[in-house]
Amino acid sequence: MSTLREEAIKMHKDNKGKLGVHSKVPVRNAKDLSLAYSPGVAEPCLDIHEDESKAYEYTMKGNLVAVVSNGTAVLGLGNIGPKAAMPVMEGKALLFKSFADVDAFPICLDTTDSDKIVETVKLLEPTFGGVNLEDIAAPHCFEIEERLKKACDIPIFHDDQHGTAIVTAAGLINALKLADKKIENISVVVNGAGAAGVAIVKLLLHMGVKDVVLCDTKGIIYEGRSVGMNSFKEELAAMTNKDQKQGNLADALEGADVFVGVSVAGAVTKEMVASMNQDPIIFAMANPVPEIMPNEAKEAGALVVGTGRSDFPNQVNNVLAFPGIFRGALDVQAKEINEEMKLAAVYAIAELISEQDLSSDYVIPDPFDRRVVAYVASAVAKAAMDSGVARKQINTDELKNRLLTLVEEKQAVLS
Amino acid sequence: MSTLREEAIKMHKDNKGKLGVHSKVPVRNAKDLSLAYSPGVAEPCLDIHEDESKAYEYTMKGNLVAVVSNGTAVLGLGNIGPKAAMPVMEGKALLFKSFADVDAFPICLDTTDSDKIVETVKLLEPTFGGVNLEDIAAPHCFEIEERLKKACDIPIFHDDQHGTAIVTAAGLINALKLADKKIENISVVVNGAGAAGVAIVKLLLHMGVKDVVLCDTKGIIYEGRSVGMNSFKEELAAMTNKDQKQGNLADALEGADVFVGVSVAGAVTKEMVASMNQDPIIFAMANPVPEIMPNEAKEAGALVVGTGRSDFPNQVNNVLAFPGIFRGALDVQAKEINEEMKLAAVYAIAELISEQDLSSDYVIPDPFDRRVVAYVASAVAKAAMDSGVARKQINTDELKNRLLTLVEEKQAVLS
Repeated sequence: MSTLREEAIKMHKDNKGKLGVHSKVPVRNAKDLSLAYSPGVAEPCLDIHEDESKAYEYTMKGNLVAVVSNGTAVLGLGNIGPKAAMPVMEGKALLFKSFADVDAFPICLDTTDSDKIVETVKLLEPTFGGVNLEDIAAPHCFEIEERLKKACDIPIFHDDQHGTAIVTAAGLINALKLADKKIENISVVVNGAGAAGVAIVKLLLHMGVKDVVLCDTKGIIYEGRSVGMNSFKEELAAMTNKDQKQGNLADALEGADVFVGVSVAGAVTKEMVASMNQDPIIFAMANPVPEIMPNEAKEAGALVVGTGRSDFPNQVNNVLAFPGIFRGALDVQAKEINEEMKLAAVYAIAELISEQDLSSDYVIPDPFDRRVVAYVASAVAKAAMDSGVARKQINTDELKNRLLTLVEEKQAVLS
Repeated sequence: MSTLREEAIKMHKDNKGKLGVHSKVPVRNAKDLSLAYSPGVAEPCLDIHEDESKAYEYTMKGNLVAVVSNGTAVLGLGNIGPKAAMPVMEGKALLFKSFADVDAFPICLDTTDSDKIVETVKLLEPTFGGVNLEDIAAPHCFEIEERLKKACDIPIFHDDQHGTAIVTAAGLINALKLADKKIENISVVVNGAGAAGVAIVKLLLHMGVKDVVLCDTKGIIYEGRSVGMNSFKEELAAMTNKDQKQGNLADALEGADVFVGVSVAGAVTKEMVASMNQDPIIFAMANPVPEIMPNEAKEAGALVVGTGRSDFPNQVNNVLAFPGIFRGALDVQAKEINEEMKLAAVYAIAELISEQDLSSDYVIPDPFDRRVVAYVASAVAKAAMDSGVARKQINTDELKNRLLTLVEEKQAVLS
């Protein structure tokens, strides 16, 4: 019996990576060549030169996402650099293709300089219909994303931030139904002020949560804290912790309704869960070992427990979000992925679980639920059109049906 | 009957471009996901982190070429910019795939600043196994290529320069057999001091031609000429025109053995051809209308005429060179494409035409001759190994046979 390591190495080696480029048109003879290349190719070139929007029609741009990383925060491996990050970026592109038929391409950049990353992605903009930033270390990732969103006219989306936030928020909405609590009344403690933690805080505030406390390795973040701060934490301190609490994570959790962990194994004890408000909701997403194991959290009174792992219920897996989000954004040739589109994804994911099916072990759909991409993409496309960032208007029911059919066909081929 | 324009637009529109990205491994379930992505993907990442050469084994890098342009000199269209250049770069990538099974990817950069192009390509290096520079205007293209060759540890190849030069040189070698002239005795006039013209001059000198005269729109280039010079022309003036001729193209051609035109329609008259040495050889590659039409050149005494067009004999088509050159370079994980490899390509192309088959209308193989890529790739791989720029040693006969089989299979599928 081979180990996961052996199997993974063999799979990567046998296939020489996981992605390939293929031709959509044949080149068999001089006639084919004259259409796909010189002289016929001059025609689409001239049309795009006259009207840039034609690039979406005549080139691969309209279905193409760059998966951009510099390899500074790869999985749990840390700063392993751009070459060693390639298998992850190829893997991410593979997920784009497998889940949403998006052509995605790994771009591993040999720099840790934020200015250079911003400049390079801006220079690459003509080729792509969107950019997924991946595994770039905090706090640089925040600045890079913000600057690129301003500079570019295509969607820029840092999945480590928003993908995790969107799926967590979807799970929270369903968990609150079980707890019979309203989002505007709950208090949430987020542990971990990295890419995901910061995005989760911002999304929850945007969704109407009034009481969020953010903790990092130094404890509760509050305005004027002297140690371990940066400009992003200062900004968050001003938006969160309305009672200006100080102390450690245990202090923060006393009486809280929800714990969201994007931190480290074992950060939460049974005692801490027991100190929370009635029917506590726990998302313990440290990988591979959660902040608290689901059975312990349940024993301490947790109503719902989600983790990052596929072997426990309620897996917070980004693959529920990013394929459908980009599918929807690309189909309407969106200029950006805005808050409305992110919220649409949150509710689309949450609503896939009906009232009857909802249970403490099922607040988040399965990553392989074939409906997810179709519902997320159509909701995101609609939100893009409604919020005015779509270059193209489409029928979202047609998109939904196309994706449901596509997934069925793919499953038939693969099974 | 639809026009070429209508057909070309329809083909690009119906397919939404010409390239796609595909998965080489399935993602059907949690097990697949655990191998292709987290947690299994960490294993190849860690191995590459320890030994960078493993990137060639575990990722798509080993078969991946970036087709990089800024759209400043696209076909005959000039500076149409990076967005409008996309159909050509996708087309080039399509040719890489169709002719040599190389995964190539268009990278259209939104800048005309040489520094930024150099920096960006350098930053992209971890992802790719090679870089094909395309349609970047002279003289910037020379500097960009030179600097990148120094900066990067993967092949950098500006096809507009070297591809054209290699195929022209192959045709010239065969034409000289018909003329019964030795390469060291001939005089060659090259008209056009752009990317291709400059590369042709350098390659011919490297191959042993002793007498080359280069002309541009101001006439013969000589040391100390006051008008229309730049540092690249100064360098060439010192290497060429051993008799320090001055005057116009007609003056240059008097008594010359070979004319190579990469300039404009109608630049050469019948009288000029008639003024050349016995059995003149003409490569009139202006597109779409050559410097002189083949029938006129023949009437004026030309022994061999080549053009850039597929509807005349002896088409100088870069597709005879670049797919096989990169195929060979990638298969040995070459660090660069050096002069030895370019010369190997020249002779491999020339030798595909046997003494019996050789004729004035057949000095260059057909672009769809299925043997070309196999012979060029194996010759280039051998030259890379012999000249010490190969990271990997391979059996070139196996490479040749694999490519011959591959092309047969592809033709069977397509026919």
